[in-house]
Amino acid sequence: MRLNAKQAVAKALAEKGHIDQIYWIGCGGSLIDLMPANYMMVAESASVESHAITAREFSVATPKRLGAHSMVVALSHSGGTPEVVEALELACARGAYVFAMTSGAGSAVDRDAWDTYVYEWADSTPQRELDAAQAIMVCAELLRAQEGYDAYDAIYEGIDKLDGIIAAARQKVNAELCDRFAALCKDHSFLYILGSGATFAQTYGFAICSLQEMQWQNCAYIHSAEYFHGPFECTEPGVFYFLQMSSGPSRVEDERVLAFLKTHTDTYMVLDAQAYGMDQVDERVRAYLEPIMVYYMNVELRAARGRVFDHDPSIRRYMGIEQY
Amino acid sequence: MRLNAKQAVAKALAEKGHIDQIYWIGCGGSLIDLMPANYMMVAESASVESHAITAREFSVATPKRLGAHSMVVALSHSGGTPEVVEALELACARGAYVFAMTSGAGSAVDRDAWDTYVYEWADSTPQRELDAAQAIMVCAELLRAQEGYDAYDAIYEGIDKLDGIIAAARQKVNAELCDRFAALCKDHSFLYILGSGATFAQTYGFAICSLQEMQWQNCAYIHSAEYFHGPFECTEPGVFYFLQMSSGPSRVEDERVLAFLKTHTDTYMVLDAQAYGMDQVDERVRAYLEPIMVYYMNVELRAARGRVFDHDPSIRRYMGIEQY
Repeated sequence: MRLNAKQAVAKALAEKGHIDQIYWIGCGGSLIDLMPANYMMVAESASVESHAITAREFSVATPKRLGAHSMVVALSHSGGTPEVVEALELACARGAYVFAMTSGAGSAVDRDAWDTYVYEWADSTPQRELDAAQAIMVCAELLRAQEGYDAYDAIYEGIDKLDGIIAAARQKVNAELCDRFAALCKDHSFLYILGSGATFAQTYGFAICSLQEMQWQNCAYIHSAEYFHGPFECTEPGVFYFLQMSSGPSRVEDERVLAFLKTHTDTYMVLDAQAYGMDQVDERVRAYLEPIMVYYMNVELRAARGRVFDHDPSIRRYMGIEQY
Repeated sequence: MRLNAKQAVAKALAEKGHIDQIYWIGCGGSLIDLMPANYMMVAESASVESHAITAREFSVATPKRLGAHSMVVALSHSGGTPEVVEALELACARGAYVFAMTSGAGSAVDRDAWDTYVYEWADSTPQRELDAAQAIMVCAELLRAQEGYDAYDAIYEGIDKLDGIIAAARQKVNAELCDRFAALCKDHSFLYILGSGATFAQTYGFAICSLQEMQWQNCAYIHSAEYFHGPFECTEPGVFYFLQMSSGPSRVEDERVLAFLKTHTDTYMVLDAQAYGMDQVDERVRAYLEPIMVYYMNVELRAARGRVFDHDPSIRRYMGIEQY
């Protein structure tokens, strides 16, 4: 059945009575879009255990607690990811309530064996209708229904602010960061990307999707809280760092990184989510919605690099082309 | 009170009746030593929810379910990590049963406010007495006490086999991989490290501890199951890949990576845990103990690189030297 996040949670609770676990399943960019919802549930829920797991691992090392009071939320943007289909079938076999999201209407993921949310991936689609916001809505609905959630309205208000925040942030990142980022990529064959909190999903995403996949740019992703426990020993003038500073509670981790970068390399850039509009969102929910804004900054940055390198981000040499 | 893993679980259950959540807390290499235990609990336990979280995130986005029926296992190898001390104090304040492991006798982590396990970090210390094996024993003891665990004896038998497996594997990695690894580092300023399953902890560890921290070698860690969802677009002749192949259920993920590397780059190396002695361990528990063996291979590989670069792995320029 076609359902949105709110309807899916209502159906899950009608069928199951209560949900004890939620598993967020996907691969690459699709897993990345679900990770902030997992981060939110771990921090906010007293009634639901939450895990985000790459689809193939979910099948080979299946959580033993997956069962009749579990909800599985799987995302495959294309709808054709075999690992996700395998995970969805496993989740059904284990008796979980299964909800799949995809932009691929009629794809392998869009089938009657489970409930689906199909979104249109267009520039004009409001954030409220897209996958990442729907995942956050799953959290808000489940929290409100099972245990109460003070910031429920703030989640929806925050989501509705995102379209405006992102439009302004796109202008700002093009004015302030894109040209320098592309120029630094010209002079550096490698860079480190740092971030924290729920936004660490987009730190990972900037590395593996925007740069490795779409620009064939070698890079590494490092969690800001882990930087001082190993990776910072690589820092010196000439080594390129890109720091995504969170506007949420994990900002203290990023601030510590920034202070070190300022005095130990001459080559760093900062995308400060606080200055890119997230200050407009209620501070109780800001951290969970921030990755949606940061994703669009990654899009602008890779596009700018693509122009300088004459490398269209839509080009692939292997994905969807070769058999693997 | 000084307790080992078995005694700690017995005390936790005596005090709490039952444990509903376990949180594995550390930073960098210490978190890495706990990650396989977390992986094991998620896969094996029907009664305990499990999460591994870097210490600072545990404090800034504290899991709401942390409480009187939680067990917190924290590790600080040195015993002086402020983030770990902060996390331990938070866990106590929330009423959890708290167990800290450290090799730093008399350190900030080794105090009476919680139970501690203090291990000697010497070449002659048997694996059974070290932190990573003790973490796995926490899992085995908790599983047996709360729900029964068929492979309980296999865990202890496997741990006791590790000393012999590691001794032989050290010889083998020096004969087969170390020289070529060091030589490839001479010719490549950057490499990708790939792995899966519980061993992904040591994929991350090889990157951030052995290479970034101890060799100032730029590199990136990629999960084998995620490789085909972005990172593989960087693969081409001349790009250096090091694949840690698991002997456990996630081996299928690594095999898929290997098949692709063989046909898409001329520069890859494989450490096959199956051929490095893990075949001697019961297949039900092999995956969980494998990271302990792989750690020692990382040690040999970094030492070999260190000799070629005249860079002693014990040298630091910032860690423990500067204020940060």
